[in-house]
Amino acid sequence: MATIALDAMGGDNGVAAAVSAAARVSLEREVAVLLIGDQRLIDEALRRQRYDASFLSVQHASQAVGMCDDPKAALAEMPDASILVGARMVACGTADALVSAGNTGASIMACSRYFKKLPGVPRTALAAVYPTERTRGPHEDPFALILDVGATLNADAATLVAFAHMGSAYAARISRNPRPRVALLSNGEEPTKGLPEIIEAHRRLLRDPHLNFVGNVEGVDLPRGKADVVVTAGFTGNVVLKMLEGISETVVDVAKYAYRSKLAWRIGLWMLRGGIMQLKQLTDWRQYGGAPILGFDKLFIKAHGRSSDRAIANALKVANKAAESGLCEQIAAQLAEVQADS
Amino acid sequence: MATIALDAMGGDNGVAAAVSAAARVSLEREVAVLLIGDQRLIDEALRRQRYDASFLSVQHASQAVGMCDDPKAALAEMPDASILVGARMVACGTADALVSAGNTGASIMACSRYFKKLPGVPRTALAAVYPTERTRGPHEDPFALILDVGATLNADAATLVAFAHMGSAYAARISRNPRPRVALLSNGEEPTKGLPEIIEAHRRLLRDPHLNFVGNVEGVDLPRGKADVVVTAGFTGNVVLKMLEGISETVVDVAKYAYRSKLAWRIGLWMLRGGIMQLKQLTDWRQYGGAPILGFDKLFIKAHGRSSDRAIANALKVANKAAESGLCEQIAAQLAEVQADS
Repeated sequence: MATIALDAMGGDNGVAAAVSAAARVSLEREVAVLLIGDQRLIDEALRRQRYDASFLSVQHASQAVGMCDDPKAALAEMPDASILVGARMVACGTADALVSAGNTGASIMACSRYFKKLPGVPRTALAAVYPTERTRGPHEDPFALILDVGATLNADAATLVAFAHMGSAYAARISRNPRPRVALLSNGEEPTKGLPEIIEAHRRLLRDPHLNFVGNVEGVDLPRGKADVVVTAGFTGNVVLKMLEGISETVVDVAKYAYRSKLAWRIGLWMLRGGIMQLKQLTDWRQYGGAPILGFDKLFIKAHGRSSDRAIANALKVANKAAESGLCEQIAAQLAEVQADS
Repeated sequence: MATIALDAMGGDNGVAAAVSAAARVSLEREVAVLLIGDQRLIDEALRRQRYDASFLSVQHASQAVGMCDDPKAALAEMPDASILVGARMVACGTADALVSAGNTGASIMACSRYFKKLPGVPRTALAAVYPTERTRGPHEDPFALILDVGATLNADAATLVAFAHMGSAYAARISRNPRPRVALLSNGEEPTKGLPEIIEAHRRLLRDPHLNFVGNVEGVDLPRGKADVVVTAGFTGNVVLKMLEGISETVVDVAKYAYRSKLAWRIGLWMLRGGIMQLKQLTDWRQYGGAPILGFDKLFIKAHGRSSDRAIANALKVANKAAESGLCEQIAAQLAEVQADS
């Protein structure tokens, strides 16, 4: 059983959501959660929860980075910030992985300060899951993984190859998909399409025996789910991810407009409500397990700022699954083989 | 009145669609169309059409580039290819602008060979229109413009600034939107977000008095229509455009699935059919006016390969509107002012 450190002070829903998530997970007796933050606030929130004390502990941290704080300045001023305490406790082995719904920049900086980059990893990557038309794995999981979505801006060929391995190892463990289809995002399917670094990464991935590389995918292939792991540099990945978020909001806006416009449309939407609920659930980012930062010796999972307690609970379970299955060790082993091959 | 050269041999729907489009437009007596291609095939198709011969003429070209041909090789082997003949006739002033639904690469190469880059334009750009939630201009036009979507891969700051002017001038004329909101696509709204060239372009555009620059937009803002002209380098623009295409196809797939799944859903979709038709029309790329290549002294409009005769007719009208309003001259004048200011 793994112990997962949870930054109790981060996220738009504050201590209440984090404590509720930890309490909920503790009752399942499969993960030990270490809540990190203001002891008084956490104790107060815990009094309103049912939980199993043998699967939940608290580590006091007197400071906390706000959602809108400048990450660098905030961390410099707050040596006892909950995210820093959490990263230290994972680095020294008290906990196995870190979860936070707080300030993304501060989280990445805290990990960079205390976690070690795995050998063979040129740059770490922030990955994100997104819903597709196609389902995969024994749980008919409709989600695909895209990385990097913002830890870096540019990526050279070696970095893209490392991203491919990191994403594939993560998808194999979390989606229980033993041979995830890995693709490079480009402006055409042909191996000659794309920026020079993409063409070079394509060449290297084609002869890589450790991956199920399916070539380039285009933007049109993302919602279709043509690949399980989409590899791209952080700038493009971030633009693409935010577009996917925008589309699901547009669908909701269009439905609202239709509802107001005509009685027939209102009735039609009512008849379709089951389908719309399914679609909404699918595009509801809150139920996802969060976005992992890959490439460090320890795993960090960034839950969305808007995360509910349920979303944070999911992130804790995903972190546990990754830690128990030895994700980081597997990434290191795979990248060592790539280096030995080249 | 402008004369528009139309490559009659390009597009998935071949000579029939091009000739039908030219015939349809000739009857409106507002544009003169010069059909370029195999005289015998064109004459044969014309016999099945009603048209006004004083607004339609034919220029024979004995060769034609196929949709899947390698552009460079094809043009080298076919000096009399319809797209080359068309570009030459526009370059020498016989026609005012060129339209083709054929091979995109060959079209761009033909223009590059015979058209002149405007002074102050570092690189030409391929622009595309896409539907948004918001409408604009007197015709409540729901479309925004994005450029570049594939003429280049990377773009430096000066190129992005030139793209902003080219796109703004086009939107002002074609959407009759006198002050189009121009934005840079980036990974955050703050002026400090993005690749170095984007940050620098942002700085220059902020102090540019000739544009209505609204700052950076993120992926999430594209379907919302936060900007009328979105400026980006070709690699990202191409990925984004193809994603927008993929999304509308996903919506259709989801609706088909819902239709097959449950009687209630089928009835619901039937009640909503008017709304769905509106949505389908909005996301139907065939009715768009095509994608202009901007930055040359002459305008080229690339109609989608799948274009119907109606879509090609629209492209002809858009080309006419651009030519009559002096689009290329306006771009040149604007860029000269930018250079004088800097």
